[in-house]
Amino acid sequence: METSCWRRAHPAWGQGARLGAALGLKLVGSFSMEGWAKVTLLGLDNLDSAGEDPSLSVAILLYLSRKYQTAPYWYPPDLQARARVDEYLAWQHTAIQLPATNVYLCKSLLPHFSGQPVDTVRLDRLLGKLKPALQHLDQEVLAAKPFLATEQVSLADLMAFTELMQPTAVGCDLFRDWPRLAAWRARVEAALGPELVQDAHKLVLQPRDPRDAQQDPRLAQELVHRLQERLS
Amino acid sequence: METSCWRRAHPAWGQGARLGAALGLKLVGSFSMEGWAKVTLLGLDNLDSAGEDPSLSVAILLYLSRKYQTAPYWYPPDLQARARVDEYLAWQHTAIQLPATNVYLCKSLLPHFSGQPVDTVRLDRLLGKLKPALQHLDQEVLAAKPFLATEQVSLADLMAFTELMQPTAVGCDLFRDWPRLAAWRARVEAALGPELVQDAHKLVLQPRDPRDAQQDPRLAQELVHRLQERLS
Repeated sequence: METSCWRRAHPAWGQGARLGAALGLKLVGSFSMEGWAKVTLLGLDNLDSAGEDPSLSVAILLYLSRKYQTAPYWYPPDLQARARVDEYLAWQHTAIQLPATNVYLCKSLLPHFSGQPVDTVRLDRLLGKLKPALQHLDQEVLAAKPFLATEQVSLADLMAFTELMQPTAVGCDLFRDWPRLAAWRARVEAALGPELVQDAHKLVLQPRDPRDAQQDPRLAQELVHRLQERLS
Repeated sequence: METSCWRRAHPAWGQGARLGAALGLKLVGSFSMEGWAKVTLLGLDNLDSAGEDPSLSVAILLYLSRKYQTAPYWYPPDLQARARVDEYLAWQHTAIQLPATNVYLCKSLLPHFSGQPVDTVRLDRLLGKLKPALQHLDQEVLAAKPFLATEQVSLADLMAFTELMQPTAVGCDLFRDWPRLAAWRARVEAALGPELVQDAHKLVLQPRDPRDAQQDPRLAQELVHRLQERLS
């Protein structure tokens, strides 16, 4: 899979998966990137990109919630409540995860590997693809309840939080225009605890050394080509 | 959500959700489109597009498997096996469902509403986006086991089958170049039973009356605009 090449090239690829798994592991009391790496070997690595393909963080979180029997509100046993969590987890792949990851790649990885400035026209177009979902969450979902799936924080909120933190971490404030979404972000941070949030986001928040990109110029070139293709 | 507009405009939108839910309901012994419609009211309709947004068919199938306690192989209780089903269900949203739906929209709905012939250049480009996933399933996943997630048929196979049937039903034979995938399709049909497969696919297989598209010209025009935007 493409991502396995990106993964070799740069640990920041699949950040959503890392954050999701990191938060998940922290919740089950065994957080560490090494611990996270082990999780991807616990039968979740039959796809080459397991644990690095952002979409797989859903499977990792579900696995962790069952393996370590986390608090019931994360993935409620009640059929209706669980269906609402599953509904969000299914919906977010194309509505949030894909466009949010593309914004991150356009604003951060592409300039990093190409050495070129951010293509602001493309960035605006990609941000536009994310807008309908943010509007739906702010004006419909969060107008009806404090969290995305139920009355309590759940895996739906954990997924949304980790995905929306990627563009935010590289300077795209997705919350500015959406007051309910901003208030929800504060509620999720409070539910998780600020230390955990800081801890899990260290990797995505740390500045990137430009010299990394030049360690393997041919691979960097291949990545730029793939990224251009993906974001076109 | 966009899809609710598409849904009013044409029952064929969200075909993946219909097929998945129809097969799911048949499996629990209460198949009918009315029955399916009821399922989307069983707490799965908090998103405007519930049951019509293709991505939500995953939530519907998980709900059905729990509600009606279907045979364990559909969603295995074993942690590792269940993680592999979840892994496929997460991966397929952007790898299979999105490109397969786009192929269907480009080959079927867009010409239907626009009255224009199929844009073959665009169709080839969209089919190209599906190719890496088909290649991965054929040459990696199905080289290792008979079904997509475990040794038996599961919800992963049901989802893949319903998604790949959409382009196939409108004349894009996705299985021609992939012998393992073609053999897998035959195994899934055998596991489900040909009558069930025929029954569930009636709607997507039936020819479309061109007069439908002209019942509401303004809406047809809006749909063409949305489709052009989505597929550009």
